[in-house]
Amino acid sequence: MIRDANATKARILEAATVEFADHGLAGARVDRLAALAGANKERIYANFGSKEALFDATIVASIEELLDTVPMDADDLPGYAERLFNFTIDHPHLLRLALWHSLERPGRLEELPQTAHSMVHKVDALRDAQRRGVVDDAVPAELLTTVILGIVHAGLILTPIPADPADLDGLRAATRLAVSRLTAPREK
Amino acid sequence: MIRDANATKARILEAATVEFADHGLAGARVDRLAALAGANKERIYANFGSKEALFDATIVASIEELLDTVPMDADDLPGYAERLFNFTIDHPHLLRLALWHSLERPGRLEELPQTAHSMVHKVDALRDAQRRGVVDDAVPAELLTTVILGIVHAGLILTPIPADPADLDGLRAATRLAVSRLTAPREK
Repeated sequence: MIRDANATKARILEAATVEFADHGLAGARVDRLAALAGANKERIYANFGSKEALFDATIVASIEELLDTVPMDADDLPGYAERLFNFTIDHPHLLRLALWHSLERPGRLEELPQTAHSMVHKVDALRDAQRRGVVDDAVPAELLTTVILGIVHAGLILTPIPADPADLDGLRAATRLAVSRLTAPREK
Repeated sequence: MIRDANATKARILEAATVEFADHGLAGARVDRLAALAGANKERIYANFGSKEALFDATIVASIEELLDTVPMDADDLPGYAERLFNFTIDHPHLLRLALWHSLERPGRLEELPQTAHSMVHKVDALRDAQRRGVVDDAVPAELLTTVILGIVHAGLILTPIPADPADLDGLRAATRLAVSRLTAPREK
């Protein structure tokens, strides 16, 4: 029974990822999502409470997958940036979910315990790497994660992801270089 | 009469900026927008054709204001990045419009003649600056605009704009530094 309940929950989250990535929070239809998941609406509300709560749970599930697959490596930030870039290309739903979320639930993502916890952990690791002299300390650790994420998503948000593999390679290399130049330790 | 028509068009665009920035394309209501503009729906459709076309016209108007106010200066990219950062902070509607547009009309923004023309102009200026040795040429001119825009918007898209002025100053300085390190000419 518990296994069935978990399987249903997983199916609902999977359908919600598609529905919210396509249409956002306001545009998503819970009945369409229910049909896609092979569950009924009552089950969805019983499991998640509200459409808003399901939206939050959906993006948290995607972010947890990202955090598991691409942990931050403060000792190799260009490599981390490149892995994050590749993950984003391979999981186009995640970036769309994050953009809808920032438009429709502004400020809410940072308040979710999963993202808040991950951010604290990243800042600590960066601060430690700066102390050890492995990462340049011109940008405070609190901001560095934000700037690195911005560089990684630079060419993937406001412009469409390049269709030509050579263009994509160029963008990947530019991303890596920008992170490397920003974070490589400098002679004092 | 022409002046009246232009004033009405300007009022419609102003109301559309608010409505689309708040709700996006699918969520915007033309009747709410008409009430805000003090115009009737028929007038809006007669002027702009469709809700989609009005959405495009709205973002083009915002982008033209940006291009007029913050022209690219290939000889001072860190300064350009800082001016762009400040404009984005002072015009929060623009970034929201751009994000809704990228989600709801993916790939369409680059096809609009105004943005396409501005992009060609920027790439030419960057290529020239690279030839003159004023800008490092490790990242091809075609990608450099994208990466710079990404760095500028880094901390303003996926995380909320910092409310504390000191945090905002820190983010501005980090933006400037990231662009400077990426683009400053290097010893060969």
